[in-house]
Amino acid sequence: MRVFIVHAHPEERSFNGAMTRTAQEALAAAGHEVVVSDLYRMGFDPVSGRRNFTTVRDPAYFRQQAEEAHAAAHDGFAPAIQAEQDKLFWCEALIFQFPLWWFGLPAILKGWVDRVFASGGRIYGGGKWYDRGVFAGKRAMCAATIGGGAPMYSEQGLNGPIGAILFPVNHGIFYFTGFTVIEPFLVHGPARMKDGERAAELERYRRRVLALGTAPTIDYPKLADYDERYVLKAPGSPAADRDGAAGVAPA
Amino acid sequence: MRVFIVHAHPEERSFNGAMTRTAQEALAAAGHEVVVSDLYRMGFDPVSGRRNFTTVRDPAYFRQQAEEAHAAAHDGFAPAIQAEQDKLFWCEALIFQFPLWWFGLPAILKGWVDRVFASGGRIYGGGKWYDRGVFAGKRAMCAATIGGGAPMYSEQGLNGPIGAILFPVNHGIFYFTGFTVIEPFLVHGPARMKDGERAAELERYRRRVLALGTAPTIDYPKLADYDERYVLKAPGSPAADRDGAAGVAPA
Repeated sequence: MRVFIVHAHPEERSFNGAMTRTAQEALAAAGHEVVVSDLYRMGFDPVSGRRNFTTVRDPAYFRQQAEEAHAAAHDGFAPAIQAEQDKLFWCEALIFQFPLWWFGLPAILKGWVDRVFASGGRIYGGGKWYDRGVFAGKRAMCAATIGGGAPMYSEQGLNGPIGAILFPVNHGIFYFTGFTVIEPFLVHGPARMKDGERAAELERYRRRVLALGTAPTIDYPKLADYDERYVLKAPGSPAADRDGAAGVAPA
Repeated sequence: MRVFIVHAHPEERSFNGAMTRTAQEALAAAGHEVVVSDLYRMGFDPVSGRRNFTTVRDPAYFRQQAEEAHAAAHDGFAPAIQAEQDKLFWCEALIFQFPLWWFGLPAILKGWVDRVFASGGRIYGGGKWYDRGVFAGKRAMCAATIGGGAPMYSEQGLNGPIGAILFPVNHGIFYFTGFTVIEPFLVHGPARMKDGERAAELERYRRRVLALGTAPTIDYPKLADYDERYVLKAPGSPAADRDGAAGVAPA
């Protein structure tokens, strides 16, 4: 399996760093191929704009998606962006390795998505999204450290359920572009753990990355489950009937 | 009222630009004070790390929150960060003006939060969070443009409910630091509108910013509603009983 890890942490010796090294070593030892984009060490610039492109469609008015479509048609992505897109096309499994900052991706990783995930059919667009997405057949996973304890992120927890917090990433980035979404791998409060606990978490992570192909996934509805306004069809509704789904579904 | 707009769009002539200009003009004409941080024009660097600080607590191992606490105690924030914190302390209402990119904040704005919202008691920490937060008494609002139509962001919509998509911002950034959260102001697909429709949306926004003090807000539970594990107390549970809430609440 070809695995692409996008790593976003400023401290090399952090627990995030240990997780990525664990994944690299375990996957390589098992004969898999691994590529890591270590965004802080690369000095990756996360600010999306004209710098994404070598081409210019409209010099007077910058429309991000129009410039993306133009660049996709004219091979006009900046080399740093093209290189990341190539890794995405190459991989069979994608891992985002990050500390949860302000209930989301660190900006360096959010901006990697803003810049690399371009429209115009290259990464999405033209009907290529969700289960018809460009990356259909590939798998993706969040591997995150979280400062607070698990109860705080439970269904009735103070910070909100972790599934809700990661929804914009799992559904909005991974599934949107076609990935099958693996359940996130979460480590709560590694800074407060004893060495033995940290080692146990790294062993748990080693087992997870070796099982990327079979790890449990999040089951989202398919495009065919939505009507022409992109609202979920109710079973038996006219919208559901229109394409025959309601008529032929077993009771 | 003192209003602080954090503006994140690469194109000055965009609809986001028009919204911020509309807000500035309307608020100033009504006698309010307005400060705008136009992040793209400022060339704001959103990558959080040692560059946030002029002080160094531990040169060998970078721990973000420990460095933040150290900087808060020793007046050690970089001038660009200190300036933004000063605007936060100054304002009574905060507006994030942005296009929804990948179901979240553009990286330049996410990183503004990553860097400016520092722990150690300056912005949060030491028991200062949620309704006991540093910014309690202030109000905050997302003002966002969204490419897709409203049905796609409805409760059963393909992209997920907009309330769920903005939860990490509204609850995780605004409410976490004490702000009262105003219902987001959303404009769907301004690029596809006729000029008259765009003007009507700007007029709707003008009325909203003039009513920031009274606009509808999102009602979240209070810290007192959670038990010692930070899980919501069920009415009548031992945790709810412990501080007398269950005993004295009217039936």
